[in-house]
Amino acid sequence: MSDNVIAVDWGSSQLRAWQGDKTLALPLGISRLNGLSPREVFEQHIAPWRESAATPVLMAGMIGSDAGWQPVPYLPCPVPLRALAARLCEVADNVWIVPGLRAGREEVMRGEETQLLGATQLAPAGCYVMPGTHSKWVQVEDGGVTGFSTAMTGELHHLLMTHSLIGNGLPAQAEDNARFCQGLERGLAAPSLVSELFRHRAARVLGGLPAASVGEALSGVLIGAEVRAMLAARPLHTITLVGSAALCCRYQQAFACAGVDTRRLCGDRAFLQGIRSLLDARC
Amino acid sequence: MSDNVIAVDWGSSQLRAWQGDKTLALPLGISRLNGLSPREVFEQHIAPWRESAATPVLMAGMIGSDAGWQPVPYLPCPVPLRALAARLCEVADNVWIVPGLRAGREEVMRGEETQLLGATQLAPAGCYVMPGTHSKWVQVEDGGVTGFSTAMTGELHHLLMTHSLIGNGLPAQAEDNARFCQGLERGLAAPSLVSELFRHRAARVLGGLPAASVGEALSGVLIGAEVRAMLAARPLHTITLVGSAALCCRYQQAFACAGVDTRRLCGDRAFLQGIRSLLDARC
Repeated sequence: MSDNVIAVDWGSSQLRAWQGDKTLALPLGISRLNGLSPREVFEQHIAPWRESAATPVLMAGMIGSDAGWQPVPYLPCPVPLRALAARLCEVADNVWIVPGLRAGREEVMRGEETQLLGATQLAPAGCYVMPGTHSKWVQVEDGGVTGFSTAMTGELHHLLMTHSLIGNGLPAQAEDNARFCQGLERGLAAPSLVSELFRHRAARVLGGLPAASVGEALSGVLIGAEVRAMLAARPLHTITLVGSAALCCRYQQAFACAGVDTRRLCGDRAFLQGIRSLLDARC
Repeated sequence: MSDNVIAVDWGSSQLRAWQGDKTLALPLGISRLNGLSPREVFEQHIAPWRESAATPVLMAGMIGSDAGWQPVPYLPCPVPLRALAARLCEVADNVWIVPGLRAGREEVMRGEETQLLGATQLAPAGCYVMPGTHSKWVQVEDGGVTGFSTAMTGELHHLLMTHSLIGNGLPAQAEDNARFCQGLERGLAAPSLVSELFRHRAARVLGGLPAASVGEALSGVLIGAEVRAMLAARPLHTITLVGSAALCCRYQQAFACAGVDTRRLCGDRAFLQGIRSLLDARC
């Protein structure tokens, strides 16, 4: 990131910021503020980076939701991504929030739009898959987002491992790519997730699934089911993954099984390119 | 229930007992014992009902699991339900636990086998659907269970409403059969649950779904998806529902939409008939 801007990705669980070669990561997402207001967190952790208000701060993510600093209206799809720059919302002196996008009345995103803006410049494509807590599958045409869908895959994995009978009493989880791949095959083949999930509990009780591998097996089934369902709705031959290396790697395995070619783009790199592009458009 | 036996349905969250026209319901399921042992709970709440050890106590449910009083081995399917009587496990003087069933290495049940024994006598059928935290779909032939599958529908609803972003910050939930039916239609039609779930969050944020109706809409989608997936794996024309009136009513609406005829049997009635039948077989 250049020195003349501070980029902030402020989500539900994490706050991350970049300026030049400085980075900051704090567990102060908007759902974990421990009674602080976003403004207080900003004053304490980000404002000290600025020499003056001449340094713009551009923030994206859930910070623009009704549970964040200030609700910033969604831009409705189809929307050209270059329209984002004109719709930044100033919440403090030269501190701006990027608006999220909505598709129809049942799909929303906050944060991914900034990654998408960068991704369309760094790796132009027609379909992006952005794995995460809430995976986004995004259709892009001529630099505009025409629509997208969300899969709650990451959140479901967390819920099942943390709060359900499946995760109850499990030991520390191990890496187990063999179990992950078995899960993938089942998720990709299963007529439905509904009847697959409980089998993780039963197989563990009956001794067929090692207790330390439940997380990997479940991850495989959930990602497989996501890929299967999304491809059933919209057949694709090539997609571009935008996200962390670890998560993109899992999805690449799933797409390989499904016969879909993939390219990969680092999610942070896409995000920072998006911020830079927004900044340039404002100058 | 006759006076000469105490029937106990002891699950994860609840303990219920019957003797004659006395009934007991306590929030002392095996996952909520607050440090007490099952034996201590038994001594405190159930033993006082007995005049002597001549009164048999028959218990079914998770009390027979490794987290219960004593693990009682599952009987493998296919299995004639009359075999249950010979495999009761005595855990104290004339206090017995009914074994659960397993199908293959990935399906287990505890408690439902006793309901099934009663159901096959009160309402003979080839397929029973037992809605609940973990719904069971059971195939029966000639008084024997040939196989079954589990859907985590009830638990998923609880997880999503209690611990996920979908349920986050919701007001008290209202009855809303119209939203439930809309959810049903979507669950029955959707290629996958995966992409349906997040829409409840988005639709609420965007104002299309009243916050007090999220629970009903989600219940409809989950039950619809369960019925769709299970029928896709195994087409059926008639099923017998065994469970509470409230839950069976929801599933009846789903089956009506799917063109499947239903009969209903009260789950408690089936359970008590099962216990009676086990007792008779022992005499």
